[in-house]
Amino acid sequence: MTVKAYGALAADKPLESLDITRRAPGHHDVRIDIAFCGVCHSDLHTVRAEWAGTLYPCVPGHEIVGRVSAVGDHVSGVKVGDLVGVGCMVDSCQHCEDCEAGLENYCDGMVGTYNGSTPDAPGHTLGGYSQQVVVHERFVLKVRHPEAQLAAVAPLLCAGITTYSPLRHWNAGPGKKVGIVGIGGLGHMAIKLARAMGAHVVAFTTSESKRQDAEALGAHEVVVSRDASAMAARGKSLDLIVNTVAAPHDLDAYLALLKRDGTMVLVGAPASPHPSPQVFNLITKRRAIAGSMIGGIPETQEMLDFCAEHGIVADIEMIRADEINEAYERMLKGDVKYRFVIDNATLAA
Amino acid sequence: MTVKAYGALAADKPLESLDITRRAPGHHDVRIDIAFCGVCHSDLHTVRAEWAGTLYPCVPGHEIVGRVSAVGDHVSGVKVGDLVGVGCMVDSCQHCEDCEAGLENYCDGMVGTYNGSTPDAPGHTLGGYSQQVVVHERFVLKVRHPEAQLAAVAPLLCAGITTYSPLRHWNAGPGKKVGIVGIGGLGHMAIKLARAMGAHVVAFTTSESKRQDAEALGAHEVVVSRDASAMAARGKSLDLIVNTVAAPHDLDAYLALLKRDGTMVLVGAPASPHPSPQVFNLITKRRAIAGSMIGGIPETQEMLDFCAEHGIVADIEMIRADEINEAYERMLKGDVKYRFVIDNATLAA
Repeated sequence: MTVKAYGALAADKPLESLDITRRAPGHHDVRIDIAFCGVCHSDLHTVRAEWAGTLYPCVPGHEIVGRVSAVGDHVSGVKVGDLVGVGCMVDSCQHCEDCEAGLENYCDGMVGTYNGSTPDAPGHTLGGYSQQVVVHERFVLKVRHPEAQLAAVAPLLCAGITTYSPLRHWNAGPGKKVGIVGIGGLGHMAIKLARAMGAHVVAFTTSESKRQDAEALGAHEVVVSRDASAMAARGKSLDLIVNTVAAPHDLDAYLALLKRDGTMVLVGAPASPHPSPQVFNLITKRRAIAGSMIGGIPETQEMLDFCAEHGIVADIEMIRADEINEAYERMLKGDVKYRFVIDNATLAA
Repeated sequence: MTVKAYGALAADKPLESLDITRRAPGHHDVRIDIAFCGVCHSDLHTVRAEWAGTLYPCVPGHEIVGRVSAVGDHVSGVKVGDLVGVGCMVDSCQHCEDCEAGLENYCDGMVGTYNGSTPDAPGHTLGGYSQQVVVHERFVLKVRHPEAQLAAVAPLLCAGITTYSPLRHWNAGPGKKVGIVGIGGLGHMAIKLARAMGAHVVAFTTSESKRQDAEALGAHEVVVSRDASAMAARGKSLDLIVNTVAAPHDLDAYLALLKRDGTMVLVGAPASPHPSPQVFNLITKRRAIAGSMIGGIPETQEMLDFCAEHGIVADIEMIRADEINEAYERMLKGDVKYRFVIDNATLAA
């Protein structure tokens, strides 16, 4: 089946309208008519080959929401007409220790929603900047938000789960002080989620101009990280830091803010390494630097349900598909509050 | 009270025989006639001012064992004649959250056994390369090993607890695979302890010549870290790594050996930073790099009792006090199996 998509034919080419094919739904497959797709920084990294191994044509997009339009004969969990979402994965080995634990995101055979390995043409997966997608039912999430919020639900499928998972895994909640570093696509979700979990939320930004926004998003305190005295005043005060900044930066300044046994979780991977953190900052308070990557499928459903219950969606700016190249440029400048979402209906144009 | 000690008058001076004074025991103090003192790499770092802030005269030594020769009138836990030990700390604030938790090692007011702040002359603490030491009872540990093993117990007070604490905190035990990086003073203890805890122990060394030793110490497997195929064969197999190597080295090679949710704990602080670890190695398996520093007093007693029960002591080479400068040079070359211990009776000579 041929559908319209938006993607790039090479690393140095802009994204353009493409025709791609989707497989007919197999026994366990779900076909989704995509309504909206969020725009993640990973999309840009991949389509411009800033990470190794991009395959072309490249159709990005892994914050997918839409409506089920067909299901295979063995699909039991969703039916035609349901509102659903697809995040960063469309398949995994489904039988390893990680998959058994519902942590498909850590499976060695995890198949990314784009640029992943697949027998389907053209041999690699094509993402959500397209009219339809066909996905194994295991990787299809139920959306329980009101349909009017659907576009703003899309970013939950990556930005939401990427911050929800470490907040849950490292026990953000009542009585805990949680730092969120960076107020962008991920960070703005992290603030909302940590607040809804009941934690005391301290947001860190390089930009005084984001103070009011961070407070509006739910931060109890906002610290401008260039303000040495404000940073020092928070020394050894935080139980957990979720650091969403992918650009290389000084990790020691944040490690010093952790209490004994505190953890800073990195959820962004910089293209070049951070300056090497001081081991003294780790050993003197038994602190840790950890990493976390998206989240498993059961946890993604839990996150979507948590967000529906708490009325949480992303702050978005809707764009047409043909505005994507411009949106990338604006994203690079941090000129978006806080997530672009493509209206996939505009792909038909 | 004046006692003989061995220490240095300046960073560029060798250690020499000195006379120092010890306070009269206060209400809660214990005076210990030191029988033996282990020689830790930290002694050398401090006495040569390789870390900031060394005060002179500097008398190192924080692996102290001996016999109680006097107690203050409020001391209840030990009595004259008891075999006891003192490790890296002789005091702390005794009332903060860390002290309340029995983690005096993480107290901001922790007073090191040497080079720490004290009202006693000369204004900083003087360590175990001396005939006697006077210590608050809270920081005095009971030694339950046979007296014949006393010299080999000394290194447990730093090398033992420094490796025991992270092994316990990160749950080394039956069903767990634990890597030990570096087979020196700390590493040889870590192998013995992890084995006694019931873990499967994989020792990593740069030196093929240490293979037999590592096996004799208790390692189930020994991997020469320069052997890329042996390293690759252990990929994603370890639950925990205790990394005892303080020299800057490639952490990524070891991170890749951790399973999902595995932690590498650094217990050595390099003078210059390690090459910056790759964030991808952390996020793709939710791994962590943590630090750990010695251990709290209750845990140190637990470690000593565990070692007494399991017949664990350090492998030592006994030296006279006047051999300490030569011992430092040998320690720098790794020419010791695996810990020098000073016979403090030789201080009287």
